[in-house]
Amino acid sequence: MFAIAPATGKANLSAGQLKLLTGKSRWIFRVGEAGFPTVPTIAITRAAWEELQAERTRRDTRLRTHWVACLYKLVSKDGPAPQLVVRTSASSHNSGLAPARLGITAPTAPEDSVDPTRPLAKAIKQAFESYGFFGGGWIAPRNEDDRARQIVLVQAVAGGEIEQFLTRNASTGAMGPAPLNGAPLPRLPDDVNALVDLLDAKAGRHMACLVAIQKGRVTFLSARPVQASAGADLQAAVDRVERKVWTPQGAVSRVDPSRLALMLHPRLKAPEEATPIAMGLGVSPGAASGVITFNPDDAARLRARGKHCILVVNETGPADIEGMKAATGILTARGGMSSHAGVIARITGKPCVAGVRSLTVDTLEMICRIGEREFHAGDRLTIDGTDGAVYLGNLPLAQPQIGGAIGTLLGWSDASRRIAVRTNVETVESAQTALSFGAEGIGLARSEHMFFSPERMVALRRMILSEDEDARSRAIAGLVDFQTGDYSALFSAMQGLPVTVRLFDPPLHEFLPRTDEEVEETAASLGVAVRALRLRLERIAEINPMLGHRGVRLAITYPEILQMQMQAVVAGARAASETQTQPVVVEVMVPFVSTATEVSWVRERIMTILDNAGMGRTDRIRVSFGTMIELPRACLRAGDIASMVDFISFGTNDLTQTTFGISRDDAPAFLAAYQRKGVYERDPFVTIDEKGVGEMIAIAIARGRAANPRLKVGICGEHAGDPASLRFFAGLGVDYVSCSPYRVPVARLTLAQASA
Amino acid sequence: MFAIAPATGKANLSAGQLKLLTGKSRWIFRVGEAGFPTVPTIAITRAAWEELQAERTRRDTRLRTHWVACLYKLVSKDGPAPQLVVRTSASSHNSGLAPARLGITAPTAPEDSVDPTRPLAKAIKQAFESYGFFGGGWIAPRNEDDRARQIVLVQAVAGGEIEQFLTRNASTGAMGPAPLNGAPLPRLPDDVNALVDLLDAKAGRHMACLVAIQKGRVTFLSARPVQASAGADLQAAVDRVERKVWTPQGAVSRVDPSRLALMLHPRLKAPEEATPIAMGLGVSPGAASGVITFNPDDAARLRARGKHCILVVNETGPADIEGMKAATGILTARGGMSSHAGVIARITGKPCVAGVRSLTVDTLEMICRIGEREFHAGDRLTIDGTDGAVYLGNLPLAQPQIGGAIGTLLGWSDASRRIAVRTNVETVESAQTALSFGAEGIGLARSEHMFFSPERMVALRRMILSEDEDARSRAIAGLVDFQTGDYSALFSAMQGLPVTVRLFDPPLHEFLPRTDEEVEETAASLGVAVRALRLRLERIAEINPMLGHRGVRLAITYPEILQMQMQAVVAGARAASETQTQPVVVEVMVPFVSTATEVSWVRERIMTILDNAGMGRTDRIRVSFGTMIELPRACLRAGDIASMVDFISFGTNDLTQTTFGISRDDAPAFLAAYQRKGVYERDPFVTIDEKGVGEMIAIAIARGRAANPRLKVGICGEHAGDPASLRFFAGLGVDYVSCSPYRVPVARLTLAQASA
Repeated sequence: MFAIAPATGKANLSAGQLKLLTGKSRWIFRVGEAGFPTVPTIAITRAAWEELQAERTRRDTRLRTHWVACLYKLVSKDGPAPQLVVRTSASSHNSGLAPARLGITAPTAPEDSVDPTRPLAKAIKQAFESYGFFGGGWIAPRNEDDRARQIVLVQAVAGGEIEQFLTRNASTGAMGPAPLNGAPLPRLPDDVNALVDLLDAKAGRHMACLVAIQKGRVTFLSARPVQASAGADLQAAVDRVERKVWTPQGAVSRVDPSRLALMLHPRLKAPEEATPIAMGLGVSPGAASGVITFNPDDAARLRARGKHCILVVNETGPADIEGMKAATGILTARGGMSSHAGVIARITGKPCVAGVRSLTVDTLEMICRIGEREFHAGDRLTIDGTDGAVYLGNLPLAQPQIGGAIGTLLGWSDASRRIAVRTNVETVESAQTALSFGAEGIGLARSEHMFFSPERMVALRRMILSEDEDARSRAIAGLVDFQTGDYSALFSAMQGLPVTVRLFDPPLHEFLPRTDEEVEETAASLGVAVRALRLRLERIAEINPMLGHRGVRLAITYPEILQMQMQAVVAGARAASETQTQPVVVEVMVPFVSTATEVSWVRERIMTILDNAGMGRTDRIRVSFGTMIELPRACLRAGDIASMVDFISFGTNDLTQTTFGISRDDAPAFLAAYQRKGVYERDPFVTIDEKGVGEMIAIAIARGRAANPRLKVGICGEHAGDPASLRFFAGLGVDYVSCSPYRVPVARLTLAQASA
Repeated sequence: MFAIAPATGKANLSAGQLKLLTGKSRWIFRVGEAGFPTVPTIAITRAAWEELQAERTRRDTRLRTHWVACLYKLVSKDGPAPQLVVRTSASSHNSGLAPARLGITAPTAPEDSVDPTRPLAKAIKQAFESYGFFGGGWIAPRNEDDRARQIVLVQAVAGGEIEQFLTRNASTGAMGPAPLNGAPLPRLPDDVNALVDLLDAKAGRHMACLVAIQKGRVTFLSARPVQASAGADLQAAVDRVERKVWTPQGAVSRVDPSRLALMLHPRLKAPEEATPIAMGLGVSPGAASGVITFNPDDAARLRARGKHCILVVNETGPADIEGMKAATGILTARGGMSSHAGVIARITGKPCVAGVRSLTVDTLEMICRIGEREFHAGDRLTIDGTDGAVYLGNLPLAQPQIGGAIGTLLGWSDASRRIAVRTNVETVESAQTALSFGAEGIGLARSEHMFFSPERMVALRRMILSEDEDARSRAIAGLVDFQTGDYSALFSAMQGLPVTVRLFDPPLHEFLPRTDEEVEETAASLGVAVRALRLRLERIAEINPMLGHRGVRLAITYPEILQMQMQAVVAGARAASETQTQPVVVEVMVPFVSTATEVSWVRERIMTILDNAGMGRTDRIRVSFGTMIELPRACLRAGDIASMVDFISFGTNDLTQTTFGISRDDAPAFLAAYQRKGVYERDPFVTIDEKGVGEMIAIAIARGRAANPRLKVGICGEHAGDPASLRFFAGLGVDYVSCSPYRVPVARLTLAQASA
């Protein structure tokens, strides 16, 4: 028990007492200490209060004497005892805390000051008891020590009007005083500006402030922090730097990168006011509203008429891509993070909720059901691809704002960042978005994604379905031109920044026809019998495609595919280098290796192709060679592998799948139960599993660098956009990370914080 | 160049010269040295021959003088120069080697002895040149040093009849002289027995022997080793111990365990005489002949009539199990080692060739095609599940013989073996087979395999397809009785030996209905609408079932399944303990864990169930708890895991799949190309990959034992039946291995050799 704002003089707290100040007590002390008029206040800890009660049972009075002396500090020199107020001072606000008890008469006898049947002690007792409440139920404090440090405040009653306001605007972050909870801002004397400046500087966040105003004089009563929007917090941070309250690096270190991510997609204006009708997996962030459509063609028609729509399907396939691009958002009954829907949605920046188990879609009847409700085409839905929620009707959305405060903050962040941030893109549009977000190169261009369009799909299917090398070579010839143009455009867009081209790694089943109709169409376009095509499809169907005939295995079994792709890379680089002054910097990356022999096999062929093309003899085009590391065996053999490559880049998605033995697509069946039962603290596909996958990466980096000290190390899985994972990667000393365009700002900020 | 059997006196070779003796030269020297009459012989190395030729070009004669002196050693004291023979003396026989050149006149002048236009030097030159041939093509000797050490022999011509014979019978291994290549055994003097004994003891293997017989006197000319059948080699080894030529441990160390495996299944009598019409994957060893049937019911009918048949299908499913049991062998167009066909075939001991790409089956027309040929039901085929070959017609087969020499040898092997050998079985019949082969317990009883019969399949499908906990609980109740009986019988069969019960780990898709007919049947037996069943099937279909909702994940999401299974284990153990004097030793093993939390979650529940059942208070039933380690993350976290378990057992199949990122079922599409192109030296699913998977296991054992020094460590993947893998596991210091019944003898012998 001690005075934090005595009626007379300074508080003079010891270092130990200062440490105890949590919640409101902290701000009352700081404001009083700074000389701003503050209502007399004392703080009592639970430990002190319980000892006072124990002493009372023992009929001792030593501590009570001190307590009464403390209470006297609420009285100005020779003044009469004031009426008292009892307030909680919790470290974080919650609705179970006791409201302030006003108008308590000061105890007249020392024994009244500790007697729980008397008003003051009764109010203090009730305030302490309310700390146990949280949302209506009891929760245990984190530990006994924390519990003993809980504080209750006893204040003198201040005369005049009591007013509340915010130190900054909750939506814009502009300097206050600003209205609280939509109430009109009260008339406040100019004095209050000094208080607002003082509190904003001391707290460094939005504060709700309680003052008494009497005869134009302001007395500070208490303050507590409030949650502002991510945008308001960011604006306030930049404003504090402009006011020289913070240094630029101070601002960089204080902004939460995960809140930054929320600003970069359309999002619900007020999610707390809406109740989801279903939950699925948020597989592509952002919110979207629109009319339901079950048909990709309808989506395109609606878009042409300027209408927003949500494409609702059981699952998506290549035939749906144009429809997906046309839709505002995508909602699927099946599939997970790496389903076709999820991959395409993230690439195209479409919000997508996948794997909604209560959803059934009847495309024939043009009806879907979510739980008991039935929906028809044209009904309205809103989805939130950030958390997987599905809402009834069109909810209001807020659009992302790039530039402004974000731009300023990220500019500052680059000064302390030591790890490069690249992006995972394969189209010029996405590359330009990523560049506008500050990407310093492409860390992962997935060649097979360049075929997500109907006319190219035919060529790709012809290649996949070819029965022998001759047929495959003919099919491939048709693909070289497409790819050459794509690479050339991508290299040009990046203007001298490095572009990592990952060799063909198709999840075959995603590119193949599925429905009877698709099979018939494909057979016609390939000029084969439907029956023959079906046999071929059955023959190449895989039981576990994730662990199947993919990545480097494809390059080794079908070297003509590797040959085609390198031809296109060379031609694309040459075309780009002729139109720009900067050199074209290409990094060729071979995926899904598990042995050093695979790497040397591919390397030898690539080097031969480059030599034959005269690529070793130009400074205008710089080609380096590396591998993805996405299998446990590749991690263990990283020493052998590193001696043959310029760089390695960890594909943390696949590495998590194989290290855990979990198919990300199939995980929803048990992942929710695992998190509910506490088996997993966090989803390992969102935040890197440091103890397992993390150790595999650490082993690989150590062995790789030991074998090749010049080895460049990158991360190109989706974890490269997650702040907690990025901090871990920074600790491993990687050279670069590569994430989706919208995550580039998050990575820039997180890595700046990690480097500071 | 030196005399290895001079006409007069001893050879007196230096240590360096002794080392050079390879092929025939070795046996000629040994026989001569032992005092048996041997034709005079000198040996010349390629290095010496080339130096002689170089000297000749330089017109030097120093070495030639020595050479001529050597040739003189073919002449007995003062005798006339004999006619000469030139023979090769390769370390291994091949058909390209030059045949012996007989009747060469001895050179009369020193210069003739090195002149390649003269008969002796010409024959020597041709003999050296023939070393380069192998099967018609040139192969390089392993290295220059080996090439320099190649030897050609020059012998005096012996008078009399030249005869050939074997030291032991090629089929039975009985002591010879025995006929060679089916030719009748010539009349031989008794002297020859001493030679046979001498050579058999010196060589320790079957030898083909060349002698000259003149006036009842035998002169030894040369000998070379020949390949005998595995059975003959084994009989010979045991016979040598009885003759005190070898010690029992010497015999144990000299028999090749992988040849032992070939004796334990029916096998082709003469594979070298047949040409396969197709190759697939040998997924269950042994050969089988019979008429083609496309229909499982027909297989049962044929069996009832005592006819052997080969079931030829695209792939198998649960509905085919009875037919598979009835068939003599199984041939499939699709699938790999862990396909339904492969798993069931190995369990039931049926030879099976799977994934024959040139095979198409039309079950409607009752026709299959292999390449260009067409087959109808009733046509005859022979398959070899050991190497995946398919032959036309019924080829003659040899049946396995257990006991006799194998039994004697394995008895000796047990004396030096320090690692226990268990078996992977779940039926009483298989357990008894394994016991007869010397299994010391069950290391892996896969509970879900107990449901491979039509009436149980219905119960299991009901459980898998149940929509909620209530429905699941009802379905489970029906399963407890089945399992209780199974466990009780299995525990009783093992008579006090440990039985490791692996908790339910179904590859769900193998148990579900597939064809329209099956779906309709299942819907009827479950009492649900076909349409509803289809929706449910679609919903639980997995994209990568290998990495899906299985193993411990099932126990955690559906605790009622765990509860049911433990109930059945407890009841089964109790029933068994009442009928036997030995205690029932049960090891409960949880599969597919990736985190220590999963282990503690399951352990806690199992301990509660055991406590409630009073199982902690009996010596008659001993229950311990452990986990399979089959995921890379479990290897890394083995320290955390080990502190909560009594044992760990490595599932090397799944660990290989996840460490390499290869689905064993889908690997055939590239594995053949990988081995052909030298990317993999060996199939990692056959022989453990020491550098990757092996390191994961080594890490896990080190961390596990550090955390729990009493930890018992086992291996229960299929690698536990492969000799090279077993040697590696022995080096890691495992406590036991567990393999399929037919592999138990292989493991016993290999581990005895590794412990010696």
